[in-house]
Parts: sequence; structure tokens; C-alpha cells
Amino acid sequence: MFIERVHSPGLAHISYFVGGRGKAAAIDPRRDGDVYLDLAREHGLRITHIFETHRNEDYVIGSRELAEVTGAEIYHGANLPFEYGHPVSGGDIFNLDGLRFGILEAPGHTSESICITLADLSASEEPVGVFTGDVLFVGDVGRTDFIEGGAELLYGSLFDKLLPLGDHLIIYPAHGAGSVCGGHLSAREFSTLGYERRHNPSLQHTERQAFIDFKQAERHYVPPYFRRMEQQNLAGPDLLGGLPDPCACIADEFAARMRQGMFVIDVRTPEAFGGAHIPGSLAIPLEYLPAFAGWFLSYNTPLGLVVERPQDVDTAVRYLIRIGYDDVVAYLAEGMHDWETGGRHFEGLPQVYIGEIKRRLEAKEEFVLLDVRSRGEFEAAHVRGAQHIYVGDLPERLAELPKDTLITTFCGSGHRAIIAASLLKRSGFEQVENCLGSMAACRATACPLETGD
Amino acid sequence: MFIERVHSPGLAHISYFVGGRGKAAAIDPRRDGDVYLDLAREHGLRITHIFETHRNEDYVIGSRELAEVTGAEIYHGANLPFEYGHPVSGGDIFNLDGLRFGILEAPGHTSESICITLADLSASEEPVGVFTGDVLFVGDVGRTDFIEGGAELLYGSLFDKLLPLGDHLIIYPAHGAGSVCGGHLSAREFSTLGYERRHNPSLQHTERQAFIDFKQAERHYVPPYFRRMEQQNLAGPDLLGGLPDPCACIADEFAARMRQGMFVIDVRTPEAFGGAHIPGSLAIPLEYLPAFAGWFLSYNTPLGLVVERPQDVDTAVRYLIRIGYDDVVAYLAEGMHDWETGGRHFEGLPQVYIGEIKRRLEAKEEFVLLDVRSRGEFEAAHVRGAQHIYVGDLPERLAELPKDTLITTFCGSGHRAIIAASLLKRSGFEQVENCLGSMAACRATACPLETGD
Amino acid sequence: MFIERVHSPGLAHISYFVGGRGKAAAIDPRRDGDVYLDLAREHGLRITHIFETHRNEDYVIGSRELAEVTGAEIYHGANLPFEYGHPVSGGDIFNLDGLRFGILEAPGHTSESICITLADLSASEEPVGVFTGDVLFVGDVGRTDFIEGGAELLYGSLFDKLLPLGDHLIIYPAHGAGSVCGGHLSAREFSTLGYERRHNPSLQHTERQAFIDFKQAERHYVPPYFRRMEQQNLAGPDLLGGLPDPCACIADEFAARMRQGMFVIDVRTPEAFGGAHIPGSLAIPLEYLPAFAGWFLSYNTPLGLVVERPQDVDTAVRYLIRIGYDDVVAYLAEGMHDWETGGRHFEGLPQVYIGEIKRRLEAKEEFVLLDVRSRGEFEAAHVRGAQHIYVGDLPERLAELPKDTLITTFCGSGHRAIIAASLLKRSGFEQVENCLGSMAACRATACPLETGD
Amino acid sequence: MFIERVHSPGLAHISYFVGGRGKAAAIDPRRDGDVYLDLAREHGLRITHIFETHRNEDYVIGSRELAEVTGAEIYHGANLPFEYGHPVSGGDIFNLDGLRFGILEAPGHTSESICITLADLSASEEPVGVFTGDVLFVGDVGRTDFIEGGAELLYGSLFDKLLPLGDHLIIYPAHGAGSVCGGHLSAREFSTLGYERRHNPSLQHTERQAFIDFKQAERHYVPPYFRRMEQQNLAGPDLLGGLPDPCACIADEFAARMRQGMFVIDVRTPEAFGGAHIPGSLAIPLEYLPAFAGWFLSYNTPLGLVVERPQDVDTAVRYLIRIGYDDVVAYLAEGMHDWETGGRHFEGLPQVYIGEIKRRLEAKEEFVLLDVRSRGEFEAAHVRGAQHIYVGDLPERLAELPKDTLITTFCGSGHRAIIAASLLKRSGFEQVENCLGSMAACRATACPLETGD
Repeated sequence: MFIERVHSPGLAHISYFVGGRGKAAAIDPRRDGDVYLDLAREHGLRITHIFETHRNEDYVIGSRELAEVTGAEIYHGANLPFEYGHPVSGGDIFNLDGLRFGILEAPGHTSESICITLADLSASEEPVGVFTGDVLFVGDVGRTDFIEGGAELLYGSLFDKLLPLGDHLIIYPAHGAGSVCGGHLSAREFSTLGYERRHNPSLQHTERQAFIDFKQAERHYVPPYFRRMEQQNLAGPDLLGGLPDPCACIADEFAARMRQGMFVIDVRTPEAFGGAHIPGSLAIPLEYLPAFAGWFLSYNTPLGLVVERPQDVDTAVRYLIRIGYDDVVAYLAEGMHDWETGGRHFEGLPQVYIGEIKRRLEAKEEFVLLDVRSRGEFEAAHVRGAQHIYVGDLPERLAELPKDTLITTFCGSGHRAIIAASLLKRSGFEQVENCLGSMAACRATACPLETGD
Repeated sequence: MFIERVHSPGLAHISYFVGGRGKAAAIDPRRDGDVYLDLAREHGLRITHIFETHRNEDYVIGSRELAEVTGAEIYHGANLPFEYGHPVSGGDIFNLDGLRFGILEAPGHTSESICITLADLSASEEPVGVFTGDVLFVGDVGRTDFIEGGAELLYGSLFDKLLPLGDHLIIYPAHGAGSVCGGHLSAREFSTLGYERRHNPSLQHTERQAFIDFKQAERHYVPPYFRRMEQQNLAGPDLLGGLPDPCACIADEFAARMRQGMFVIDVRTPEAFGGAHIPGSLAIPLEYLPAFAGWFLSYNTPLGLVVERPQDVDTAVRYLIRIGYDDVVAYLAEGMHDWETGGRHFEGLPQVYIGEIKRRLEAKEEFVLLDVRSRGEFEAAHVRGAQHIYVGDLPERLAELPKDTLITTFCGSGHRAIIAASLLKRSGFEQVENCLGSMAACRATACPLETGD
Repeated sequence: MFIERVHSPGLAHISYFVGGRGKAAAIDPRRDGDVYLDLAREHGLRITHIFETHRNEDYVIGSRELAEVTGAEIYHGANLPFEYGHPVSGGDIFNLDGLRFGILEAPGHTSESICITLADLSASEEPVGVFTGDVLFVGDVGRTDFIEGGAELLYGSLFDKLLPLGDHLIIYPAHGAGSVCGGHLSAREFSTLGYERRHNPSLQHTERQAFIDFKQAERHYVPPYFRRMEQQNLAGPDLLGGLPDPCACIADEFAARMRQGMFVIDVRTPEAFGGAHIPGSLAIPLEYLPAFAGWFLSYNTPLGLVVERPQDVDTAVRYLIRIGYDDVVAYLAEGMHDWETGGRHFEGLPQVYIGEIKRRLEAKEEFVLLDVRSRGEFEAAHVRGAQHIYVGDLPERLAELPKDTLITTFCGSGHRAIIAASLLKRSGFEQVENCLGSMAACRATACPLETGD
Repeated sequence: MFIERVHSPGLAHISYFVGGRGKAAAIDPRRDGDVYLDLAREHGLRITHIFETHRNEDYVIGSRELAEVTGAEIYHGANLPFEYGHPVSGGDIFNLDGLRFGILEAPGHTSESICITLADLSASEEPVGVFTGDVLFVGDVGRTDFIEGGAELLYGSLFDKLLPLGDHLIIYPAHGAGSVCGGHLSAREFSTLGYERRHNPSLQHTERQAFIDFKQAERHYVPPYFRRMEQQNLAGPDLLGGLPDPCACIADEFAARMRQGMFVIDVRTPEAFGGAHIPGSLAIPLEYLPAFAGWFLSYNTPLGLVVERPQDVDTAVRYLIRIGYDDVVAYLAEGMHDWETGGRHFEGLPQVYIGEIKRRLEAKEEFVLLDVRSRGEFEAAHVRGAQHIYVGDLPERLAELPKDTLITTFCGSGHRAIIAASLLKRSGFEQVENCLGSMAACRATACPLETGD
């Protein structure tokens, strides 16, 4: 018996491959499912069960894709009208060789959320671990703003069902640090019900109403692509068959496709984008693609990629199809080098370090420090005088920004800010620069900060 | 913060790489330490701390090798006169970026055994896990036959120190299933103090004397190479610098080296050895090399390998140097094929299936069913009439076996039995065969069994 | 500009990936075309041209499969009514960035065979190399028994068209050593027209009639699957979409599928098959699968695999789909070990070394030495008294063999002989053994040989 | 028999691994010799012969390193007093299984240069190929400025010895495109004596004196590190034992080491360096490290690396040790990100596209267009008004440049120019920018050019 974590970076999504003797199960598989097939082959196992802890809203679930190849059965909670798979109820058990999966209904994040206990029958029928989906994370609990009464339901799931299983159960949550499905997930991935009961900040609100109040006070962003994910995951996502294979385009052809409407995403580092980029391209550093593409990209426009190295194409394609962007048609074959040696127009985007920002503030020079972090981050601490617009809201709030003043984009470290900066440039703002280091650099250099909005 | 398990198959040894932000620690590193360096490089970390949970007896510890390259400091228990590294005492703590390692003295398996708690300071100073060395495993506890009073010491370490840390701590033991350092380790690798407290069979003996009696009733084998491991691990093992690079020998040269005293180990499967092998070679299937080579090989004789595929050479060399056999000088370059096409003498070794054994037993045909499993396994259940000699004891007990009767070697599944069979053939026994499937096949086919000795 | 050889072992097939700046071409691509896509991605190229040197008879061409993904155009000779792709004529040229491909009609092996010259336009319009398909190999020329007048046509192609291109052209043939498309290919893969003109044995017959006589005296085997390959390659092979994913079956299920008609191929080594195998399985050592499966397997029977290691499944599946066997449904998940520990019936097959054969011959013991090499090999030299039946002909000539006498199968080294031996056992012969080493061992030990039939 | 090319990018060095049956030879092995050991293991071969075609001046030869591990013998030309290995003379032959290496003395590039013919004895004693070292390349011949009378000697080696071997021999030169050991090597790697005789521009000077005049008119740069290479390669280079393992340093420690004298090389792309870099660091894009580090780095200063991704560290270290820089002590563990978030000072370097250069030229704006290509490239064509200083000469000619005027560095595509730009900034020039695209962009956009100096 073994459990293999499968990370989908950017989404901070964690799926699990649970192997017994001869058979295996997958929990919340992602859409590019070769990783599960490889694990099955490596261990000589057959995937027979697929569990979905809930109808996900932040990525396309890979259950149907994996079931198509393996013949496995799909199971999910009963409280939503899925158009595929089998509904399960609390108390249901599934034996798989010497393993036993047990269903626990745990609504709150969604109405049909389930947790799944895991017992090693060779030792005991009592569970040794529990797959907690988006109910309980390491260091946080699931957000409850998707459904009416979510906070109260979650309280019951956590305090009346999950925690009573015992301190000694290892937890296997569906997200790690950085997820948009919770706020303050730990960078550590392993924990137990007991450790969380003691140290998870959200679980310190042990009184029902206190917990509900705490959760209802949270504010979360809802990227526009969530709606599509929800629809697809209810209906059963389209089958891919294989990964899209974007065409390797030399600069001439890449430019031609741009003229025909292809939207260009530049997934290189902020530094490289700052040095030279194709005018009009949107910067989303590779690791930020899964979490931020869904704010800015249309599902009806073909996508082109600018990458640092050819092997990044595969990564970018996987990131995109995981959130339903399957129409990735081209990449710039030799990267910016080919664009540059072709004599084509490129632009830079100045990067500024925190020392210069401090100098300006002290000198009271005029410029807009545009902080694009979340409202919560902004309120916790921000540079005096900074203007706040969340990066995801920027497309709709451009009118709030001046065109004739230098705008310095700013975030936690400079990554979301480069997205914002490139968006401004695309939108006709000419005096734009990005603060690499941003808030982290502020803290490291004792920049004067203020709180509130 | 992350923990990476590093398995050394065959030894069932598990070492750990614990990464913080910028720095990393290794727990009980193995001798071929490239795996830790690769992890450090992949994550951009520097290894600064090396902890040894105890002076190991079953493999050569890799601390000095790793410290040589990284400059890390080595720490181990204070109760043995190590000639390298630093002694630590109960209560000592080591902070490494946001991690904290805490020392717990836990004698019993050895006199200087320590357990090491791990806290994630970003969440709490309370530990979330504990490296339990050979004190506590998943499903078993450490053996206590190495030191006087070991059982009593271990009781104190387990019940007075380790378990009181709380049910919610995840355990990280130094061995997994199949280790010779414990008897009944689980195939599952993850557990918690609480789960073990409830379900670990050894921990059900909660009364001091009952536990001591239980442990003292255990009988363990002590392979002859343990003594050398203990000496080396106390003095600080020789530095390797790199893996031995055995020469690719064509059959002519391989044969010449054999005549000069090279000892040949055939690491192919029992089936392949059964089909054709070099007369005089000792069969130890690759995965059994770490656990059984130390019973049969001299440290003063150069070793030659017969492998299935060239890539197995690297695996075999690693397995051998982990237990101190550094003098691996040659391998048969194109495997048995080259030996065969050279017209050289090879032999087969018949493999027999359980149906035939049952037929003989029913027909009361004369033959020796030589069961080479451990005494404990034998006593639990064996085929009626079987003769028992543990595979490790065989070299010294050959005189107990007849030379003029068919001997069928037998074990759990046919792997230890092929070692035994090849040993008999080397020793002049001519009527030898191996029962593939062995005890597992017996059980699957409801063979009549008896218990006791 | 670079050329990458892509080998398909067993078939001894060589395809080529030719990369320019931005674009690439594939010559005779195989059906599992991921290797070309990977090369294209690695170098940032787009595959735009696919050339087929001829309608292949020994494997399924991968052109359509590759064109489907890349959008490349397919080109082949004009003298056969292909149902896909574009016909080309002698003198046609194709420029691809700085490369130029030139068509040379070169019938003889097939009626529409072409050779394709390659020029590096940055240096000269004169070609630097030529893709010779099955017209000219290193050390041999193509077989001419497929079409009427083939030998005469080939003479013209070689002496009037190819060799006059000049001694200095490098040749890139479609097969390497071991192919069934020619008889005596060199183990060396690189050569030039000039080196072949001087040292290729077939090209020493420079007179037209002498060459024709020489070729017409050749005798080649035609495996039954060739017919299907020819049909498929003319019509355009079925699209696979991806590799078949045979199910990992435990022994119980594997046995159940066998009872339902699944045909079992054991691709392990002869030694391992000799040690233990499933009764009724056909031994075809992995590397022999591409060349020999087509003699024995039906296209209408689902196939099951017994492998040494799980990673061999992928290799075996690729080997099989390259010759059109797409219905690979299962493999024995933990190999023979699972079969054995389940207590199931297995058998051995004795392996005998040449010394024993010689002893028997000298002692004039009665047994059949069944030499299954090709007629040409047999006539060149064989052990006195050996009986000859080609391994491929064996299914139809079983009646020629005695059931009550020991049959020792024999070939070049023991691999084709293990196929034969397993076939005999499947067919009810009980006294069968295999001579590992076979003819190679004979030669190494100066066995008395005779020639002729 | 097979030949495997081993490329060392940047140096454009090609070494060869030649495998027979059982044994193998290496030609001009590089210093990090794991690649040869891996090939030997993969094919079950033992490396017994190492040939050096000449005493290399552009990299550290790996012969001693490889001989140390394998026990192979080293062979080189007799006309230099090597302190290791064995001298060979014209006509010497070395048989290795079925292969034959034949020595041809071919001075000109160095005084002891040899070429080595290769015959496949299974086909003929006549050679099929020849390792031409730095005597003959694809598209060029070796430079002759290292020794007195080199041109005349080379003429004899080429026209009297090499070409007479016959048009049909395949050539295996020691360098590919981009080498500093020749001027105009082709991007194609395969050729024959006959193709070169016809199309190699240098070989068109068939008259002795014309050839000598042609060669003597060439002007080559001699990087300062060549001298050290020559000394080391004559004396026998220091043994490494393994690759240096630079420490993963967080920004604080990296900065501390800089203050203690560590010299920082930034191997990221020009774009990334342009976006943000550590003040004082020298930009050498990764692939340019082998060819240009030797112009700028001292052998007595510890080196620190700034990389894009951790896996680039290994590549950079290999590139550096190949030219004798073994003291690589540190790398910035999380790249520039860690530097930026620490609030440390970083700078940008503006990148300008060719359109802007043209605009300035037309507007007659004042700026220095500093062309750092080789003199030959400059004379062939350059932008009107450009100032020429070769990148390698820049450290000694800084005084020729103005400190108060904008300097735009310029080369073939922007890579050598970024080295130059970073060097200027290090040296106190403040108005520096780099023209990405450079000459290639000029040509693509029909920029007005002039020739001569």
C-alpha cells in the first residue's frame, strides 16, 4: 500500500494515487492523466476507482479522461446532478485489495463535498488517513463563499465529523500552499487531524457562531473562469485524447498569426520580459499561468506562447488545458532571439528596485504605486500612498488610472505585478514599470508601511 | 518545508532529506549520496546538518561521505565513542531556517539511539513529526538483542518518551517492510504515534514486564557482516569518492578472473538462473543482494557480477557498497549470452511447482524439502516433513544434508531458496532443485501444513 | 542542418529526421511517432515533409499517423496506386530552408522505390548524401524477389543512377544489420557510395547479367504478415491515436483471459523461459518480437504478455504495433513471480550446452538436432546429422518430427531456437530442449561441421 | 561497430566514442568524462584506447581523467614532449576487436597533429573513415597561426596525405560550427573527403603557394587562456575526481562572498540580464561561456554564478572545468528572485531594437555603435559609422571609449554584445545599451551597410 502525491503547480492542486496489490485508485485526478498511467505501469497496477472529493471550480477534473483509458469507475458526492459517474453516500465503503475507502459527507465548500477515509486492512479497519478535499487543508479550511450557508455546513463537517475521527489520522488535502481555494495554506504538506486541531488558525474558532462569523468575514476573489469549470465538471469535461501540439512558428509566421487574432502569452520570467518582449503580449510567468490565465484569457481566442526554452511549451500547454484552454496553436520556435534577429519591433519594460521607490517617496516625486495584490494583503500592510486594484480586476478598472503619469506596478514579489504591467502596456499606458521584489523587498529593507484600505 | 523519503531497497532502509528555505538536513544518509546532492541542487538548498539516529549495524552510514562534499556537520547520540561527528543530548535543538529539530534520547535498539522531533516554526514550536530511527516502525518496534537490557530501555524510550509526544505526530522510521532490524514491519510507510499506539502489535504490551518478556522472546538472526558495519560506523567509514566501476569483461576474461579467485554473484531472477548459469556462481537475486550478501561474501575476495541487463550493474554496485563490499571488479559484459555462444559450460537448476511437491508428498516419494526460512517463519507453519536450516546458517550446516538424495529448496516464494540451492550446488550437491512459489504457493493451494519445530 | 537516425530494433529499420532551420522532414517514419515529435520540439522545428522511400512490406509505415498530428505532406513513388499522399517523379526537388531533397526513381526492391538525395545549399547544390531506402544498404543491396524483373531493375537503379552520383556521397539506408529486407547487412551503419562500390559484395557483380544471376540465386523467406503490411501501406494504415495500454492483470485474471482465448507471448530471455514459463505460451525474446511475431501470431486474437520488468511492456507494445498487432490486451502484472506464488502450474524447458551435444554425437546417442536457421545459413555450415526446418516454417511442418524422441532446437545462438522449442511444446511435443549458444558455440569450440543440405 | 559523437557545445568540440565488440576507444575526450563511461556501460564495453589528435589549445583534454578510471592507454603525436601517454608515428596501427585505427602524421595546426583512419575489418582493411582532428573540418581547415610554417605543413598534410586516401572516406573532425579553431565551419556535421575536396572553400586553393598565401592572410584571435591550456595539455591536466559542487547561496551569503572577492558571472539570457542583474556581474550567456570565459576570467579568483534555473548550474560548471576553471564556489540559490525580494540593489540594461538604431542614424543623433565582432566579420560588413573593438580586446581598450556618450553594443545577434555591455558597466560606463538582433536584424531589415575597416 502506498500513496503518491501528484502536484499540479500553480493551482497548488494535489491529487493522489493510492496503490494496493494489483489495483489502484486516483483521487481528484487532473486532466493530463499520463502521470497516473505511468505510476500504474511502474507498479504493475490497474486503476479501478476514481474519487472526486467535490465538483471543482478551479480546474477541469480529469476523471472522465482517465476513466476512458482505464475503464475505472468514477465516484462523487450525491448532492449535485453530475451527468457522469456514480453518486456515493456517507458510510459507503469501497474495498480495493487490502485497502478500504470510506465515504464521509462533508458539505460546506460545495454542497456535495465528501471526505474519504483510508484504512489499511492488514493492520486495522480503523482509518489511518483521510482525504480531506477542500474541507480541511494544512493550516486552513476550505472557503465557504460558493454556497448559501456554507460556513455553517463546514463547521458541522469539520467539528462534528472530521475531527472526531481522532488526532492520529494523517490528512491528505486537495490543495497545498498558494491555492485560491483557501487563504493561508501552509507550505508544509503533511499533517494530522490532531496537529490541525491544535494549530490550524481556522480551527481555533471552536464555537459554532464564532466560526461562522470568522468564515463569513473572509473575502475571496472569484476568477471569471470558475463558472466554466463548474459547468464542465458537472457535465463531464470534453475528452482531450492527447495534449494539444502547438506549432513551432518562426517569427514571420508567428507575427502572421498574431495579425489573424492569436493572443500571445509570454511565460518567461519578469526579468526577461523586462529586457525584451513582443509589443502587445501579456506577461504571465510560467508558474503563474494556472492561477491567473483564467482572469484574462478568452476561451474563444487561439493562444500563442513565448517561452524561454522549448521544454517550457509542454509545461505551459499542460497548465492551460488543466483550466480548459485547449486552443494553444503556436509558440515562437526559437524564442525572442528569432524575433530580434528578424529585426522586428520589441520593447522593454523597466524594472525598478525598492531603493529607488523609497527615494522617490522621500523626494515626494509624483508617480502611481499600483498595488495589485488581493484586498486582504493590501489591508494587512502596504506602502504609504499606494493605490490598490487587484490584478484580476484590472481589465475592468483601467479607467481609474492616469495615462500621463508613471505607474509602478507592485505586488508580493514582482510576479503578479509584471502581469499587471504588461496589461497596462497592452492597454495603451506608456509609462509603466514594475517593482521587482515589491512587498518582500519592502519588508527586507524596513520600508515604511501602513495598514487598512 | 518538505520531507523527501529516500529508499534503499533490499535493506528496507529509509533515509530522509528535509528541506527548509536555503538549507537542508539529511537523516541517516546512505553511502552513495548523490541522491541527496541532486535533491539539494533541484531545490537550490545547501545540506548543513546530518543526523544519525543510531550507529547502524546493517549498512555503512553515508554521513562522512556526504559531509566531505557538502561541509555539513554530523550529529549522533552521545553514548558511543564515535570517532567523527558531534554528540548530542536529549533536549538539544537545531534550528534550520523555519524548521526545528529536537533531540530525544531513546536507547534500546542501541545504547545511543536518538529520536528527532521536527517542528514547523511557521505554525508552532510543537513538533508535527518525529524521526524514530530503529525505535519505532510502522507496525513494529526495534529489535533489542544487540545490547544488554535493551528491551527494558526500549520500553522506557517508547512509553515514557515517544508516545507521550502525542497521538498527532507523524512518524518517520528508519526502516520499512522487509528490514532485518525488525520483524513485522508494515508495507505501509506512513503512520502516526496515535495509530501505532492503537494498532502496532508490539505496543499492545503496555505493561513494562509484559513488553520486556515479549521482546526477549524474539529471536533474530545476526548476519556476520553486522560486526564490520558496527566497527566502520563507529570509526567513520572509508570514503569512496565515487562508485566502483567494474570492468566490462567478455567471457574469456571473466573466466580468467574466476580462475584467479574472483567470486561470482549471479543477480538475475531465479527463473533465469534456473535456465542457465555459470557453474560455481552464487545466485542472489538483485533485490535480495543487500539483505543476504553479508551472509555469504568475504570482504577480502574480489567480486564479479552476472546481470540481466547492463543497467543492473549500477544497482548491484550500489547495493554492495552500501554494505561495505567495495571490491566489485568485473561483470560479464553481454551477460550469459556471451558465455553460451563462447561454448562454455553452463548448467541449469530445475524449478519445481507446488503441484509436483504435493504429488510427491502424497506418493511418499523420498526427497528432502529443505525449508530455509527463518526459524520463526518455519515454526508458524511449514510443510509436513520439511527439514529446516536458515539460509544464512547453511554454509556451516551442510554436513546435515545428504548428498545422494534430491534436495528441494523452499522458502517464502522461491528467492531465498534459490540462494540456498546455488550454495548447495557450489558445495558439491548434485541433486538440487528449487521450489518457485514455495510457501506462498502452498497457501494458495491449500497445502497441508504443520506448526512448531 | 542535422540528421538524426531513429532505430527500430528487431526490424533493423532506420528512419531519419532531417532538421533545417525552422522545418524538418521525416524519412520512412515508424508508426509510434512520438520520437519525431520530441525531436521537433527539442529543436523548435515543424515537420512539414514526410518521404517514403518505398511501400514497405515488413512494418506499418507511420506517415499517416505523423501527418495527422503535424499537418505534414506525404510523398512517395508514383508507380503504385497509394490511397494517400502525393506521388513524386525522378528529378523532383523539395527545398526546405537551406536543404534540398531530390528524387531519384530506383525500382527493383519494389516497383515505385525512390532514393532521395540531400544537398546542403549553404555549401553547394550538389548532394552530400542520399537516402537509399531498400535499394542499397551498408554491405548489401535490397532483395528483388517481390516483383517480376526486380533484379534487372535494381541493377539499373544501382549502377546507372545511384553509383554515378559519386564516391563521396554518404548513404542513409532504411535498414541496418539484422533486417529481413537484405541478407548480409553490416553491423556498421555509416558508409559512402564509394566505399560500397569497392567493398559491398553485391556490387562486385558489375556485369548486368552476372548481377541478375547473383540476385536471382538468392532465396528469401516471406513471413505471412508481409501481405498485410503491403495492403495497409498502400491503403494508408489505420490511425492509432496513441499506444494500446494493456491491462495489468494478476495471475487469476490473466489465466481467465487465457481461457477466453488470449494468446500468450513470453518475451523474457531464453534462460528465464527455460527456468519457468506458463504452459502453452510462445517464447519470443523481446528483441526478436518485431522480426518473428509476424510468422506466428494471428491478427484476430487478443495478445497477452509475460515480461521480465514492467518497463518491457511499453517496448513490447511498440514492437507489436509497428507490425500491426494492435490488440495487446494484458500483461502478467508481477511477472512469473505472481504466477508461481499463486501455486499455478508452470514448466521448465531444459537448456543444453554445446559440450553435451558433442558428447552425444560422439556417443552416437539418438536425438534430433533441429536446426531452425534459414536454409542459407544451414547450407553454409551445420552440425552433422542435423535436421533442418526454418523456424518460420515450423507450424506447417510439425508432422516431420517424431514425438517420442528428444528434440534439441538449435539456431545461431539459441534465440530462434527457443521460439521453436516453445512452439513444439505448445504443439504437444514433450521431449524438447534448447541449445543455448548453438552455432556460435559450435564455432567457438571447433565442433565438426558439414555444408550443403 | 559504432561511432558516437559527443558534443561539447560552446567549444564546438566533438569527441568520439568508437565501440567494437567488447572494447572501445575515445578520441579527444573531454574532461567531464562520465559520458564515455555511460556509453561504455550501456553497450557493455571497456575503454582501452584513448587517442588525442593533437595537443589542444582551446580546452583541457580529458585523457588522463578517463585513463585514471578505465585503465586505458593514451596515445598522441610524437613531435611534442608530452609528460604522459605514448607517442605514435605514421603507419602505426591499433587493432581493437574488428576495428583498425591507423596513424597518419598531419602537422600544420600543431606540430604533432595526427589523423586517425578507421577500418572495419569485417568488410575490408581499407579505411571507411578518418578522424581529422583540427586538420580538416566540414567546410574549413585548421588554423595555422600557432606554429612557424604551419600553412605549408598543413598543405602537405591535406593534399599529400589526407585527400589521397580517397573521396569515399567519411570525415570525423574535432570541431563543428562555431569553433575558434577554424573560421567558417559548416553547421552540417557530416561530410566526406570527396565532398570537402569539391566544396570546402579552403581546399579550392589547390596550388601550394596559393594555399599558403590564403592561410597566412587569415587573422585569428588568441584568447589569453589558450596558453594555459597548452601547458596543461602537455604536462597532463590535473585530475578532477568529480565535478566541483558550488554551494547554493542565499542572497545574503552570495553578497558576502562577493565582498570577499568572488567574481560573478551571469549566464542568463541577454533579455533577462537586461531586465535585472547584480551590479558588477559579467554577463556571459550560458552557451557562450566555453568560448568567451577564457578572455575575461582569472584562474585565481573564485567564481559565483547567477543562473536561470538550478539545472543550469551543472551545465555552467561543466563548461567552466572544460577550460580549466575549477574554482566555482557558489551560485545564487533562487536566482535573481531572491536578490530582488531581499531588497538588494539591481540594475537593468536597456535593449534596443534595430529600428531605433536606424532612426538615430537617419536623425544623425550622437551615440557610439560599438561593434564587438571579429575584425573579419566587421570588415565583411558593418553599419556605417560603427566603431570596432573585438569583445575579447575590450578590457585593454576601454580608454578608446567615451564615458559621457551613449554606447550601444553590437555584434552578430546580441550575445557577444551583452558581454561587452556588461563589461562596460562593470568598468564604470553608465550610458550603455545593447542592440538585440544586431547584425542579423540589420540584414533582415536592409540596413545600410559598408565594408572594410
